[in-house]
Amino acid sequence: MKILSGIQPTGRFHWGNYFGAIRQYIALQGHEQSFYFIADLHALTTVREPHVLRQNVKDAALDLLALGLDPQRATLFRQSDVPETTELTWLLMTIAQMHLLEKCHAFKDKKAKGIAADAGLFTYPVLMAADILIYDSTTVPVGADQIQHVEVTRDLAQRFNTIYGDTLHLPEAYVLDDSAKVPGRDGEKMSKSYDNIIPIFETPKKLGKMIMSIKTDSTSKESSKNPDTCSVFELYKLFATPEAQMTLTERYRAGGMGYGEAKQALYEAAIAHFETAFARRTQLETSPDIVEDILREGAHRARAKAQEVLERVRAACGLLAKPV
Amino acid sequence: MKILSGIQPTGRFHWGNYFGAIRQYIALQGHEQSFYFIADLHALTTVREPHVLRQNVKDAALDLLALGLDPQRATLFRQSDVPETTELTWLLMTIAQMHLLEKCHAFKDKKAKGIAADAGLFTYPVLMAADILIYDSTTVPVGADQIQHVEVTRDLAQRFNTIYGDTLHLPEAYVLDDSAKVPGRDGEKMSKSYDNIIPIFETPKKLGKMIMSIKTDSTSKESSKNPDTCSVFELYKLFATPEAQMTLTERYRAGGMGYGEAKQALYEAAIAHFETAFARRTQLETSPDIVEDILREGAHRARAKAQEVLERVRAACGLLAKPV
Repeated sequence: MKILSGIQPTGRFHWGNYFGAIRQYIALQGHEQSFYFIADLHALTTVREPHVLRQNVKDAALDLLALGLDPQRATLFRQSDVPETTELTWLLMTIAQMHLLEKCHAFKDKKAKGIAADAGLFTYPVLMAADILIYDSTTVPVGADQIQHVEVTRDLAQRFNTIYGDTLHLPEAYVLDDSAKVPGRDGEKMSKSYDNIIPIFETPKKLGKMIMSIKTDSTSKESSKNPDTCSVFELYKLFATPEAQMTLTERYRAGGMGYGEAKQALYEAAIAHFETAFARRTQLETSPDIVEDILREGAHRARAKAQEVLERVRAACGLLAKPV
Repeated sequence: MKILSGIQPTGRFHWGNYFGAIRQYIALQGHEQSFYFIADLHALTTVREPHVLRQNVKDAALDLLALGLDPQRATLFRQSDVPETTELTWLLMTIAQMHLLEKCHAFKDKKAKGIAADAGLFTYPVLMAADILIYDSTTVPVGADQIQHVEVTRDLAQRFNTIYGDTLHLPEAYVLDDSAKVPGRDGEKMSKSYDNIIPIFETPKKLGKMIMSIKTDSTSKESSKNPDTCSVFELYKLFATPEAQMTLTERYRAGGMGYGEAKQALYEAAIAHFETAFARRTQLETSPDIVEDILREGAHRARAKAQEVLERVRAACGLLAKPV
């Protein structure tokens, strides 16, 4: 399997990102080819402050490495360090039909809302296809809402192959498990846009405060409580062993336990879960050169593959080999 | 002045291309920066046969060098040899407003005719802007029908500068003289799409045949003729000195001269005009390595400038310096 996964540098990652995607991405490392890139070129369609983008990209690299992405088993790099991607983007653009892009969710949704979209939003599915195809990726882990990107990628590759002969490999989507519900502090789905997140890397003090602010119902301490309708319990389940879950379930049902105690249990479970990652991140933060070396080496490996594929594509459509 | 001129490799150039554009482009060489590129990435939006594209690019290089483009005074290169262009294309795409592209002629015309356009046609003004901006070009020679491209380029540069601070130089259009009428063999404007062209580089025998097939009216040999309504004379004017034009005018008006004789005069003038270019082309054809060296050296010079500008742009929008 040749895995490809792009991660948007949207700022510090939160529990929703972790359980819904990052943890599952990382679990896939160690295959024949495991490429993970920080999608800074995509981020430019929304981030317009240079210092924010720079910080987000640094944070994304630190977070991913701290959370277990292992440069020995996977290749981590910045998208913008592989210029072959934008070359392929143009080559795919010349064969991309307008209607294919017009039907893509992000653009369609914005247009339906009457919001003026930039051409970056309209054409980013082509960049995304180039990201995937430039490495001969076979397997693209995606959330259910992103299956369309892989479909568009397959459409573009197929059309290219029809016009120019068999050149591009058709990838498959690997749909991530989204069964884990990750509620935010207000009970809604955890999401930056709802302002209800809990960041993965937060000082214990701030983390404690955030957890204490999770919305619960007004059941009194004495009363029996229902764990199945409680965000605190929902989050606890993500971290705890089945045994620990059972124990807390019993305490919920028995009554005599306030939500503060459940929150304390969640806090301790979260601290324990991310302890190693936290220590690793603190260490990496003090050695920015190591992170930079990892990204440089990653870009080097990724480009070697990208150049091979790009030369194949250029030859297929009649461009000459680049001068050395 | 920093001149930039892109030439579409549309097959062998004809007299219309030469008098309307190429001759004027070449006359501008020798400035501080005179960059001429063969627009193979643009050609991909219409040419789908790899061998045709390859041949067209080779022919364009040979034709331009034969016609007087001097690698000592100008930089000639293939667009696709400068990958920085497609990188900048994406960066500009993220700030390009849809309505700016929707109003561009090529797309609008095709859409109005109900023809399904590809995304390449829709977004090529962004590629064109990148072509211009990546070299800090100050002056872009264009036909009157292409002024819009320079306007779009200025709009994009301005928007980028507004968002990210002063980064890109705004170029000016240098409008080519289009007063020289170049009729085709049927009297309509000479154009490949009318199938009425006379190629610049054609064997004397074929050239003679083509010239003999130019449409004239049915005035008898004896009658006086009007040079001002005759395509043969119109074409002759492009090659002949004012004195020679005067002489032929008198022969038209005097009567007793058939169109065959005027065509013979045109034939001889054309052969004489392109004699040096013809010899140079024949010589270059036998030394493909020389042409390749010129293109390679040109790409080298162009990339040095492109890399400088791209690094400035990347820094402005928050991308990190590329690893070495």
